[in-house]
Amino acid sequence: MINKAKLHEIIFEADTRMGKLFDVILLWFIIASVVTVIIDSVEPIHNRHQNLLYVLEWIFTIVFTIEYAMRLWVVKKPLKYATSFFGIIDLLSILPTYISIFVAGTQYLLVIRALRLLRVFRILKLVKFTREGMHILLALRKSLYRIGIFLAFVLTLVTILGSTMYVIEGSVNSKFADIPTSIYWAIVTLTTVGYGDITPVTSAGQFLAAVIMLLGYSIIAVPTGIVSAELTRSAISTNTHNCRTCGHSFHEDNARHCLVCGASLYLDESE
Amino acid sequence: MINKAKLHEIIFEADTRMGKLFDVILLWFIIASVVTVIIDSVEPIHNRHQNLLYVLEWIFTIVFTIEYAMRLWVVKKPLKYATSFFGIIDLLSILPTYISIFVAGTQYLLVIRALRLLRVFRILKLVKFTREGMHILLALRKSLYRIGIFLAFVLTLVTILGSTMYVIEGSVNSKFADIPTSIYWAIVTLTTVGYGDITPVTSAGQFLAAVIMLLGYSIIAVPTGIVSAELTRSAISTNTHNCRTCGHSFHEDNARHCLVCGASLYLDESE
Amino acid sequence: MINKAKLHEIIFEADTRMGKLFDVILLWFIIASVVTVIIDSVEPIHNRHQNLLYVLEWIFTIVFTIEYAMRLWVVKKPLKYATSFFGIIDLLSILPTYISIFVAGTQYLLVIRALRLLRVFRILKLVKFTREGMHILLALRKSLYRIGIFLAFVLTLVTILGSTMYVIEGSVNSKFADIPTSIYWAIVTLTTVGYGDITPVTSAGQFLAAVIMLLGYSIIAVPTGIVSAELTRSAISTNTHNCRTCGHSFHEDNARHCLVCGASLYLDESE
Amino acid sequence: MINKAKLHEIIFEADTRMGKLFDVILLWFIIASVVTVIIDSVEPIHNRHQNLLYVLEWIFTIVFTIEYAMRLWVVKKPLKYATSFFGIIDLLSILPTYISIFVAGTQYLLVIRALRLLRVFRILKLVKFTREGMHILLALRKSLYRIGIFLAFVLTLVTILGSTMYVIEGSVNSKFADIPTSIYWAIVTLTTVGYGDITPVTSAGQFLAAVIMLLGYSIIAVPTGIVSAELTRSAISTNTHNCRTCGHSFHEDNARHCLVCGASLYLDESE
Repeated sequence: MINKAKLHEIIFEADTRMGKLFDVILLWFIIASVVTVIIDSVEPIHNRHQNLLYVLEWIFTIVFTIEYAMRLWVVKKPLKYATSFFGIIDLLSILPTYISIFVAGTQYLLVIRALRLLRVFRILKLVKFTREGMHILLALRKSLYRIGIFLAFVLTLVTILGSTMYVIEGSVNSKFADIPTSIYWAIVTLTTVGYGDITPVTSAGQFLAAVIMLLGYSIIAVPTGIVSAELTRSAISTNTHNCRTCGHSFHEDNARHCLVCGASLYLDESE
Repeated sequence: MINKAKLHEIIFEADTRMGKLFDVILLWFIIASVVTVIIDSVEPIHNRHQNLLYVLEWIFTIVFTIEYAMRLWVVKKPLKYATSFFGIIDLLSILPTYISIFVAGTQYLLVIRALRLLRVFRILKLVKFTREGMHILLALRKSLYRIGIFLAFVLTLVTILGSTMYVIEGSVNSKFADIPTSIYWAIVTLTTVGYGDITPVTSAGQFLAAVIMLLGYSIIAVPTGIVSAELTRSAISTNTHNCRTCGHSFHEDNARHCLVCGASLYLDESE
Repeated sequence: MINKAKLHEIIFEADTRMGKLFDVILLWFIIASVVTVIIDSVEPIHNRHQNLLYVLEWIFTIVFTIEYAMRLWVVKKPLKYATSFFGIIDLLSILPTYISIFVAGTQYLLVIRALRLLRVFRILKLVKFTREGMHILLALRKSLYRIGIFLAFVLTLVTILGSTMYVIEGSVNSKFADIPTSIYWAIVTLTTVGYGDITPVTSAGQFLAAVIMLLGYSIIAVPTGIVSAELTRSAISTNTHNCRTCGHSFHEDNARHCLVCGASLYLDESE
Repeated sequence: MINKAKLHEIIFEADTRMGKLFDVILLWFIIASVVTVIIDSVEPIHNRHQNLLYVLEWIFTIVFTIEYAMRLWVVKKPLKYATSFFGIIDLLSILPTYISIFVAGTQYLLVIRALRLLRVFRILKLVKFTREGMHILLALRKSLYRIGIFLAFVLTLVTILGSTMYVIEGSVNSKFADIPTSIYWAIVTLTTVGYGDITPVTSAGQFLAAVIMLLGYSIIAVPTGIVSAELTRSAISTNTHNCRTCGHSFHEDNARHCLVCGASLYLDESE
């Protein structure tokens, strides 16, 4: 029989055979439940397979409820898990179906269904342990503050540019009805998305639009440069061997001697 | 009581507790005043809350006027501040409301309202002192000249491509009415914005459009590469230790000896 | 007369004069056949030159059949070639024309015609041997796993964002008819393509759209950073000299001594 | 009086005071002539200022003719200059106006007017001598071959994807009328331009479109990575001092000793 400690390993860890199997099965269950929600929104499918989709939804909910209960049971500090990021998501992905019994408003249910899709994020747990994923996440975390500053700058820019555009086009072009819409247009243009639902018609407006486009085309270099620089830097230092003499841990991939103290990094060479 | 020197530190610096508090409060006032201007432009909101928004605008203007007066009073060289970049912006963000008493034309007031949004740039003052912000600004300043050359090249390119497109499509497609519009279209296409308000209809026009797209898709690599290279380079040299022997200040992150003169960078090692 | 071994060299290799000539002639035949398929789809051209295009198609098919037969004949293990990637493509690029004799449904023939275009990939064989092509392919292969993780993250993101958008706009905007369409819209927006066939109309929808755009504008930095880092790293290590002492093969471009064992990389210096 | 040699220096070089002045004046003349051509295409302006624009055009033509004649006169090998890239452009930028006397067809004149815009490229002559411009051009030239391979790959990709889309949507969606149009659409989508003039309507079509978008969003990393890597590499090696002992020319910006032989790079230190 499986005891609590072993069950904990199976459910929470991914480095044993059983733990891996549990995670992969769970992954497929999550994907299947998400696909069910997605295709349920397509009217012809919903009308024809209403009952099947309803049953499937309840099966997924029951399975995830059992999983949630088991997690609460095996974990040492249930409250800490229940209030953690994944603990809350786990709860939110089963609650809506139960609430739907008492509350009839289908309109509101839709919102909750979308939240259930957050289950997919649990897939990232599998990724979290791979070396490559760690590498990118580390570089992103280091870049996060810089990208935050960049986004603050972009938001300031689109506020000013959008307002200026409202002043230029507002009186002539009904599409630039107010400043929020003009800021939305500035974001659409600066990020080079360019829907075309709102476009300038005056010469001055088209000139400013051209300036915003060239700006967006140029400053995209900033977040890209930040992440590139971080990844290049970490790519250069990916040797996992720590120096046994001084403990320095980042070395060139093909380094055999410590960068700092010069001691050999490999046992087989020094012996 | 607070003396002039201490007030200067609170208003102009952000490294004391009071100075930080002042900057954060000011930041929220600026954001609130900008949001007021933005939502005032939305017609239904303007019609319903006209009086409230009018009062709020005057409160913000008075607060910023007191702040501007205080800055002029505590600073050693008031004229130098008044003519500095932020001094002019500070003045421009209070002037329009006063002018609106004498000049009735609401049409023109709109232009001035947009300028008031420039207040947001004062937020950057907070950022200015952080190390990360400095880092990016330094790399951008170094890249500025190169990006300038790149933009000059792009402008030449879109002029020629836009004119060629006018020759190809001008007689068939009423959307390509003149060369300025065709150049505008070329910028929309090259920067991969692609509104779709102006699109080629002839085979030759679609072929040239495809060439411009592929060009834009490829040459975006240039500004990105410039900034990436600059940031990578500065990312490699971020060791803050100055050499105590020769004073050289940029070293590899894990360097322990000076790049220039070879002296040890750390005291604990040389002793 | 040409024997089997020599024919093998001419057909399969590109490093002799005859082998190069064969590949270049084949390349032009493939391009010509692809162009024929493409222009055959243009109705006015198809109606006027129907017979010519039909004859051309058969000429190309016969030439490629002879080439395929020759490849099967000269190769040592015909079965291995026939089941290889290019072996299957070679067969698929001649089969459709023969099948078209027996099966009349032009509708289905169109699908097969598109597959014939895969012939163009054979051009890459010529590239495969060049050093530069190798360099990029190597960097891409190394980056593939990381880009895969990135795409998995992007797909999760667009699923959640698309569903949220369906909840926000679904009841008001007929364009967001179901979740799959909303996910399609999220991809169009995140990748900054921005067709504009589906656009948000509510304030909340436009706000979420703006968030997705800024997200897409920022996270494009990730794949770019990954490939940049890989190429920068391999660009730094492109010295082709292998160490004559320990065999280590990647050295800095201007290195004169082996990174691993310290032996001189150049004969003329050690003598 | 100015002799032929000095005139050559003024006209062809930009490193003397007179040479610089000549280039700057010429630059403004070119820009003015280009602006004249551009605004002449705007119908209301053309109708009102027809005579003025006609006179201006002839003034520019005469000035550029004198300049062209002078270049032919002062250069040592006139034929070599006349057949060089800028020699041909110089001729092409004056010819059209003369031809317009004999040939009345305004329709054809338009084409030639666009060519005159190529004069702007002469601006690059000024840039050519600056160190920064050289730096970027060098990195681009090194990257050109790789970007060429990348573009060949992209063209193959859009041919196959466009054809597949024609097969999927062709029979249902009149916008995907033939394969060339479908390839045009594939380029619009892959480069993330996204006009929205042609969009898929079937589920399969929207799925393939989403795949193309994600592809385009990911592979833009390749040209960017290529240029980034090249610029990073050259940014690291920008010390202009050649080693006086071994002649090695690329050193780190802050290097004081030769990378290869260890000799000092600066005279003042060795003395």
